[in-house]
Amino acid sequence: MPKEIERKFIVDTTQLPKLSNGDHYTQGYIDPERATMRVRITPKGCVLTFKSKEGGTTRSEYEFPVDEATGRALLEDLGRKPFIDKTRVRHDVDGKTWEIDTFYGDNEGLVMAEVELDSEDETITIPEWAVKEVTNDARYYNANLSQRPYSTFAKERTSQ
Amino acid sequence: MPKEIERKFIVDTTQLPKLSNGDHYTQGYIDPERATMRVRITPKGCVLTFKSKEGGTTRSEYEFPVDEATGRALLEDLGRKPFIDKTRVRHDVDGKTWEIDTFYGDNEGLVMAEVELDSEDETITIPEWAVKEVTNDARYYNANLSQRPYSTFAKERTSQ
Repeated sequence: MPKEIERKFIVDTTQLPKLSNGDHYTQGYIDPERATMRVRITPKGCVLTFKSKEGGTTRSEYEFPVDEATGRALLEDLGRKPFIDKTRVRHDVDGKTWEIDTFYGDNEGLVMAEVELDSEDETITIPEWAVKEVTNDARYYNANLSQRPYSTFAKERTSQ
Repeated sequence: MPKEIERKFIVDTTQLPKLSNGDHYTQGYIDPERATMRVRITPKGCVLTFKSKEGGTTRSEYEFPVDEATGRALLEDLGRKPFIDKTRVRHDVDGKTWEIDTFYGDNEGLVMAEVELDSEDETITIPEWAVKEVTNDARYYNANLSQRPYSTFAKERTSQ
């Protein structure tokens, strides 16, 4: 686990030697009320993703490919457990690529498909195997499935 | 602002065509109770940093150099305002490099120096201009200075 060991002091500038002007830094902190921070590890590498929490079809999303070893260490150290464990396969339907996720662990039994649109009102072919839309159902956000997995809403499933 | 427009569906696997096995994904979400997520933009580029919130000299820290345009957009969109605005200059004292930060905006008047140690019990030379240690004072964490800036604790300062 990478550790930062540091000490901090208030500076009396009247006692400071003459120094160069230094570099300008702008920095801020992501608001956890408004964003989720995801670490995803796939066979192609590690990606950090920030998504806005606003619901519905359109959400802000920022992706950063990062060093896998560091990403994995971050996830183990500061990630909420359990993690989401799934396989993803891509499948084209009438010119659109669907991503079909099969979940494991506490989300065993859940298979979910996503399709990315070019605009909110784009008309697409919904294949017959896509049986129930859950775009606006926050329970099915991966962030929520890791904390309240599919196994906990089995009753609701059977009544659908 | 990059937007993700997507629709999600539950899949009935009995109706799905035969597909390949897919790629394995492990993913999780950083716990905002335990970590702060910083975006820092400097003349040398943009860095995302995750730090554990535990106090004291030693904290976990994970750094990822990332694309600057995307990092800046993320900060503007999902960062807590106001941001921290400062200049940083490096200065060596007896073989250790000190980073001296001069703050602007609501933190105008604050000049703070940090030195990184190799171990918690390392003995270092404290220069005469480093007049007051604040390593364990959470008010001086940059994450807190952006929300409760130095200008708000002026009274405490004068009584020190």
